[in-house]
Amino acid sequence: MPETTLTPETAGFVDALKFDADGLIPAIAQQHDSGEVLMLAWMNRESIRETLAGGRVVYWSRSRQALWRKGDSSGQVQHLVELRVDCDRDCLLLLVDQKGAACHTGRRSCFFTAIRDGAPRIVAEIIADPEALYRS
Amino acid sequence: MPETTLTPETAGFVDALKFDADGLIPAIAQQHDSGEVLMLAWMNRESIRETLAGGRVVYWSRSRQALWRKGDSSGQVQHLVELRVDCDRDCLLLLVDQKGAACHTGRRSCFFTAIRDGAPRIVAEIIADPEALYRS
Repeated sequence: MPETTLTPETAGFVDALKFDADGLIPAIAQQHDSGEVLMLAWMNRESIRETLAGGRVVYWSRSRQALWRKGDSSGQVQHLVELRVDCDRDCLLLLVDQKGAACHTGRRSCFFTAIRDGAPRIVAEIIADPEALYRS
Repeated sequence: MPETTLTPETAGFVDALKFDADGLIPAIAQQHDSGEVLMLAWMNRESIRETLAGGRVVYWSRSRQALWRKGDSSGQVQHLVELRVDCDRDCLLLLVDQKGAACHTGRRSCFFTAIRDGAPRIVAEIIADPEALYRS
C-alpha cells in the first residue's frame, strides 16, 4: 500500500464526518462507469484514511471487528475512483472499479434479490464460483 | 394511498429482514433508469410495508422519530419501481423514480461533495430553490 499522506484538507474532512456510536459510517460502493450499486459496508476513520491514501477500498468488518481489505481473500478487489459524502456527512458513496464479483455469493452485486410479482426473486446470476473465490 | 394488501410471500420477506437494535434498516435510493445514487435513509417494518403497498417511498425519520412520506413537504416524491435486498438481508436498494431534487439542499442527489485534488469540492448544482421547496 502506498504510504501517501493525506492533505490537511482531506484529513480534516475525514475527522468531520459523522460516525455512529460504534465509530462507523455506512459506505455505498457503486461501479463508477456502469452505475451498478454493488454493496453497502461500513468504514471507520482508519479504513477511510487507508482507502483515500492507498486507493484500494478498505472497510471495517463488523462481524470480525477488524479492517477488511476487500479482495484480500477473494481477489475481487475494489479500486477507489472517487469518494463522496452526503449532505448530512453521515454516509459515504464510493465510486469504485470493482474486479469481478463484489458479493461473497459470486454475484456482481449483493442486491440480487428483488420483489417481483408479489414475491422475492433472484434477479442476478453467479459470475464467479464462490468456493473458488475463498479457497485458501 | 392505495390500501393494497401485501402477498404472504412479500409480508414474510419483510418480516425476515434484519433490522438493527432500533428496528431500522438502511435503504439506498437509486434512480431506476439513470443509475444515480440519490440518498441513503432508514426504514422500519411499517415504512417498508407502506412503500410496497402504496408505491410511494416512505422512510423512517430518525430525527423526528416518525414516518417520513418523502415529498409531503417538498413535493419531491419518490415512486418505487423495484425493491431489492442484499445478500445479508440487512440493507435495501430502492429503485425509484425521483421527481426533481432528492436532497433538501435542492440538489438532485445528497452525494454532492467529492474529494478531488486533495480537498472536498461541491460537484453538483442546485436544481430547485430549497426555500421554495419547504415554503408551507
